[in-house]
Amino acid sequence: MGRVTVRRRVLRIREGAASHRPDTLAAEEPMEIRVGGRPLTITMRTPGDDFDLAAGFLVGEGVLHAADHIAGIRYCLGATGGGGGNTYNVVDVALAPGVAAPDVSLERNFYTTSSCGLCGRAGLDAVRTAATWSVAEDPLHLAPERLAELPDRLRSAQKVFDSTGGLHAAGLFTADGDLLCLREDVGRHNAVDKVVGHALRSGMLPLRETVLMVSGRASFELVQKAVTAGIPMLAAVSAPSSLAVDLAVESGLTLVGFLRGNSMNVYAGAERLRPEPVGAR
Amino acid sequence: MGRVTVRRRVLRIREGAASHRPDTLAAEEPMEIRVGGRPLTITMRTPGDDFDLAAGFLVGEGVLHAADHIAGIRYCLGATGGGGGNTYNVVDVALAPGVAAPDVSLERNFYTTSSCGLCGRAGLDAVRTAATWSVAEDPLHLAPERLAELPDRLRSAQKVFDSTGGLHAAGLFTADGDLLCLREDVGRHNAVDKVVGHALRSGMLPLRETVLMVSGRASFELVQKAVTAGIPMLAAVSAPSSLAVDLAVESGLTLVGFLRGNSMNVYAGAERLRPEPVGAR
Repeated sequence: MGRVTVRRRVLRIREGAASHRPDTLAAEEPMEIRVGGRPLTITMRTPGDDFDLAAGFLVGEGVLHAADHIAGIRYCLGATGGGGGNTYNVVDVALAPGVAAPDVSLERNFYTTSSCGLCGRAGLDAVRTAATWSVAEDPLHLAPERLAELPDRLRSAQKVFDSTGGLHAAGLFTADGDLLCLREDVGRHNAVDKVVGHALRSGMLPLRETVLMVSGRASFELVQKAVTAGIPMLAAVSAPSSLAVDLAVESGLTLVGFLRGNSMNVYAGAERLRPEPVGAR
Repeated sequence: MGRVTVRRRVLRIREGAASHRPDTLAAEEPMEIRVGGRPLTITMRTPGDDFDLAAGFLVGEGVLHAADHIAGIRYCLGATGGGGGNTYNVVDVALAPGVAAPDVSLERNFYTTSSCGLCGRAGLDAVRTAATWSVAEDPLHLAPERLAELPDRLRSAQKVFDSTGGLHAAGLFTADGDLLCLREDVGRHNAVDKVVGHALRSGMLPLRETVLMVSGRASFELVQKAVTAGIPMLAAVSAPSSLAVDLAVESGLTLVGFLRGNSMNVYAGAERLRPEPVGAR
């Protein structure tokens, strides 16, 4: 697709001196997700990994739990832009026989928006319903020193892609700190959906003993997306919200914020962060 | 209300040393916006200035353009939480006679989500329809040096409120750099809606010759919200997206990104940023 970034001419002003130069921007375009041909939601996203985005979104909604729940994913060829060509902005997911389609009634749509996850539904109760797996018993543990290495690993991997300063990153790591999947997007929820969708389509769900690292803040919706994918630990560079902490405590997810340098705040599930035995490395 | 922040116990790890201490978090709760008793949307927001949030959201939707378009705003007393009390999370806006209610059909709801504005509708075309005022002819001009002072002013005003590191800020300034209104929220779109709603209810729309300054990135939706409020200039500390630039160019809005120190990138409407005459201050 190659539309992750676009070039625009910009007037740069530095210490009173102005010059025109080209600038690289994060691409942002709407994408409509359909299930069995019926519109479900729209999200503003950075083009690329669109099938993963659609699949990951449906994991968070409790619709998909395994790769074989998907009969097929395709761009809707009938959806055209002004020029008449396929805009590649409408993705249709065909469900396998026996997989229940999401409710697309007004009430359901009303309560499900692209970026606030389950916010409007009965909240914490709805997450319990949507989550197929429990993360509370996940045996993941790692030393705080190992967790502290992840932001640098995320950033160095991200640098390859992000020249815009305008993208959120989400990285999935093993307990040993190996990067399994990195995705970037103008929307942080989309970056996580793309990671989860890739994992689903690769047959990796539930994502036991993994850590999801995000470049920004930890909101309620990101905790919700981690829990529904079976991820037992979410680590963020910035702050969590109060509702994110509440849901993490309820779900048994380990929630870490302000992960910077050798410093972090653990808001829930601290039992998974144990110091390494002396001489372990 | 007093729920802008909440306290939680956190395990803080610094250089291998762990200690328990209380931490201040940005509060995040769902809020449902109703119009004439009919549910319209839900947003995850930081409680406070909820009536401004509801009013500002409806400005962005093209429903409200003046204070007297509102017959009344109230919390729905019938909406109760688990404890049976009013959760103060449902706000109902009664429209004045003659003001057209928003379309709450499935298609409309499908296309209108709380955080991506008009994304799914016909996009740029829909903004033109929703915008009552044109910002293209707005006579605002200010020197880049004056604009460069705004981030510090926003941060110093913000410091009073934000002890969490988890809030987005939006500030409305005059061309002379005077702060008219500052709002903070876990959602950047909400911070802008609260500013616009306050202005609407104070009889200040359209917000001619003003600058909207935001602490984060400039997305399509923030440009859309500025245009529908009649604000001619949007300045962001971080990067804009491609679609934000496209809409700014189309609308005649001045869009500034990476406003840091004495440096900025001007993506659209650079004619409003003129150097000051020598000796002007």
